Amino acid sequence: MAHEDITNLALRRMLYFPTAEIYGGLAGFWDFGPIGQRIRRKIVEFWRKELVEREGFVEISGSQILPEAAFKASGHLDNFNDPIVQCNKCKSLFRADNLIADHTKEIIPESMSTQELGNLIKKHEIKCTKCKSNDFSEVKKFNMMIKVDVGATGENVGYLRPETCQNIFLDFPRVFKAARETLPLGIAQVGSSFRNEIAPRNTLLRERELGQMEIEIFFDLDKINEIENWDSVENYKLNLLRLGKKEVEKVSCKEAVEKKLMSGKLIAYCLAKVQKLYEKYGFKIENMRFRELDKDERAFYAKETWDFEVQTSLGWVEIIACNYRTDYDLAGHSKGSKQDLSVNIEGKKIMPHVFEISAGVDRTLYAVLDACYRQEKRGSEERIFLDLPTAISPYTVAVFPLVKKDGLLEKGKEVLELIEDYGFDAVFDEKASIGRRYARVDEIGVKYVITIDYDTMKDSTVTLRERTSMEQKRVKINDLPELLWRLSLGKAEFGTIK
Amino acid sequence: MAHEDITNLALRRMLYFPTAEIYGGLAGFWDFGPIGQRIRRKIVEFWRKELVEREGFVEISGSQILPEAAFKASGHLDNFNDPIVQCNKCKSLFRADNLIADHTKEIIPESMSTQELGNLIKKHEIKCTKCKSNDFSEVKKFNMMIKVDVGATGENVGYLRPETCQNIFLDFPRVFKAARETLPLGIAQVGSSFRNEIAPRNTLLRERELGQMEIEIFFDLDKINEIENWDSVENYKLNLLRLGKKEVEKVSCKEAVEKKLMSGKLIAYCLAKVQKLYEKYGFKIENMRFRELDKDERAFYAKETWDFEVQTSLGWVEIIACNYRTDYDLAGHSKGSKQDLSVNIEGKKIMPHVFEISAGVDRTLYAVLDACYRQEKRGSEERIFLDLPTAISPYTVAVFPLVKKDGLLEKGKEVLELIEDYGFDAVFDEKASIGRRYARVDEIGVKYVITIDYDTMKDSTVTLRERTSMEQKRVKINDLPELLWRLSLGKAEFGTIK
Repeated sequence: MAHEDITNLALRRMLYFPTAEIYGGLAGFWDFGPIGQRIRRKIVEFWRKELVEREGFVEISGSQILPEAAFKASGHLDNFNDPIVQCNKCKSLFRADNLIADHTKEIIPESMSTQELGNLIKKHEIKCTKCKSNDFSEVKKFNMMIKVDVGATGENVGYLRPETCQNIFLDFPRVFKAARETLPLGIAQVGSSFRNEIAPRNTLLRERELGQMEIEIFFDLDKINEIENWDSVENYKLNLLRLGKKEVEKVSCKEAVEKKLMSGKLIAYCLAKVQKLYEKYGFKIENMRFRELDKDERAFYAKETWDFEVQTSLGWVEIIACNYRTDYDLAGHSKGSKQDLSVNIEGKKIMPHVFEISAGVDRTLYAVLDACYRQEKRGSEERIFLDLPTAISPYTVAVFPLVKKDGLLEKGKEVLELIEDYGFDAVFDEKASIGRRYARVDEIGVKYVITIDYDTMKDSTVTLRERTSMEQKRVKINDLPELLWRLSLGKAEFGTIK
Repeated sequence: MAHEDITNLALRRMLYFPTAEIYGGLAGFWDFGPIGQRIRRKIVEFWRKELVEREGFVEISGSQILPEAAFKASGHLDNFNDPIVQCNKCKSLFRADNLIADHTKEIIPESMSTQELGNLIKKHEIKCTKCKSNDFSEVKKFNMMIKVDVGATGENVGYLRPETCQNIFLDFPRVFKAARETLPLGIAQVGSSFRNEIAPRNTLLRERELGQMEIEIFFDLDKINEIENWDSVENYKLNLLRLGKKEVEKVSCKEAVEKKLMSGKLIAYCLAKVQKLYEKYGFKIENMRFRELDKDERAFYAKETWDFEVQTSLGWVEIIACNYRTDYDLAGHSKGSKQDLSVNIEGKKIMPHVFEISAGVDRTLYAVLDACYRQEKRGSEERIFLDLPTAISPYTVAVFPLVKKDGLLEKGKEVLELIEDYGFDAVFDEKASIGRRYARVDEIGVKYVITIDYDTMKDSTVTLRERTSMEQKRVKINDLPELLWRLSLGKAEFGTIK
């Protein structure tokens, strides 16, 4: 299985495709079609349930345009840069670090200066990949923020947010009050961010408009080791790829804290919750790791960073940045806005510290498709299916009348209505042979199929088929709602249905 | 109850508040706090279930930035304008039509020319509302689109979309294929749109970044009267405020079509579905109407428009534009992109026509809060609560341990975990008196409260309280999941629990 298989499936079933394709597209922008949109939405809903609601965190939804002053204070106007270089001959633009890395096959640290990058281009005698000239401009910093003028006279300068978390920092005072002034306080947000990438690539992996699901956990630094549900993760093992190490080590949360591999229990707890969530998304434990980032690899606001990466057909891909941002953001916005964002907790005035779990939605979708794609021989037939966990299947159930005549079509619609009435995602298909219909829903990962046949008309039972095992059971129509409810909650097993 | 009550509730409970408030805000942008975000999200989910999934429509999710060519073809670069006028003395900017309407208390048609508007300002001797000067600039057209430069050299001009539907038109060819080339085909999208309004006002009612939930129904004009589920609406009565009429008429869908009050059954069917949905959102039938728009009031792409309006404390507010867009969009994009967007249906080549149901998410939220706000005397106490329908309550259930001691707190957490394990939205509160806790969740419309008391410790039962009636029942903990499931689906009645 390869990147091409996923891209082919995506285009064949319109999971995602280039934005404004009929106008030749706009590099780095993608639209999600009916099925892609469903899986993507369910990925977000499952994240919300597991990582936000179960943890007692809250969620906000803020504007995507924020005033210039906010990004001045956040450091993004000064620091959110990529180094670029232009070919003087054909005028092609490159990200200088990518150009060098593609040539030397070595990692270029984010912190390298424009001068050092320029020197490396000369030293390695790198040529323009388009016209083969080696006449390059100086390496310059390019700010990736996208500017917008607001108001009729352009009197207000705003920017599209480059990360969803800035709304969270700006709204912290109000949300803290709404949460009745306690710490730790997790505030989450899902939405789009915008980065004017020089070189968007690998479909959903480097976009200019990208989906993020972020959580910022505000805490009292003095209490970084006071974690309420610590015993639920204590012995859980994290896959850590530590600085300077070549191999992943399996380290229990307890051990990670005792050996001071990270700043405290809060961080180990968060990493455990992330790894557990992605296990539930369908990733094998050996295909996940937390890579510790070196000082010059980290974002400008981070003191400690663990990149959560998963193995895909394109190699290891960063899915989540787990950043210990300290009080960088609240302190910066306090200064920038001249409002004191410190808080009073039991008579003590503190500036909360922040641990961030910043996940890419589209990257998660890509990696999930990659992890769940199956190609199987069954006799002479080849079968392609998505082995998606129940929670993120695009539809819980499909309803197929075996044939359109003799009342089976109408009976099928009745069953569909019953199923939808109980709130399940259902898709109806009455066209083509039953085998082709199974193949179609398997390919997009629908979990169960209900088939209406001639026996249904006699005894009000249907066939319920499970996607991965292809096993079938005979079930009474009246029992379907409660059975599907229990199955989709994991409170019943398909194999044990009588 | 008034606009101020809603705004007060919104600010007190942080339902919504100005974006980047600590920097003085940015007019026309709003953030949604934890509870506001939940109700808003549930409004969207309920719309999706009722108006998209039940109808067999599909949903996409597209980029918010689209290339310039798309808006050239859509007509927005030429026609998406507001007339503005500036005070030559104090430099204040006004929307010319609003300035005149505020003075004359008359409706100014959208189609009025800049010259006519200028003449009216002179004729009525209108003064600047800021400095009282009557020295105004000429009235000019101001394009409300927000421009963005994409790419390092700004080589790609893009715009933030002013309506979510443009993605749908651009993606139509792919989605049509994915839907296996049948009409009618409903394609929906939820997301933000951006309009550089001159005068944002009334909080969520006129924003610069606004939430939309839109459906475009592509159909064969020859089959506008072939509607599959017509009999489900035939006798349902629409509240119509027809052109030139002063009073709302209650007209059945059948009658509306027979009397040719609208272009066909498809339109009557859609209006019925909208009105039914808003009944379920909690609006009284007499507080809803479809106002027919005159030629010069309609958007530039519409041949027939019914504005769905609801009565609020600010008067009648437009919530949904129901536009018959004909083949305006597909024809325009065919021409602009030089791609033929017509389709083949059973050997016949047609350019589908489009009926649009374009709903404002934030306006719906505002109107829902307004419609469900209750202030009640109970003895000497005044009670404020949101009488939200179950489907859009921010939490299905709250869990309160009566006291923190004697194991009640731990028992409460156990019950919370059980409830969450079954996928319910739940909130936990152990602070303050039980009365204050009830008041807090009533005010944000939580539907049920489970209270853990000393009897719980003895017999594993809890109190289940319903918000509006304040009625209480004693229920076994083990029965809670299935009971809540049936209650939240409307398959059980609180009043009949034994």
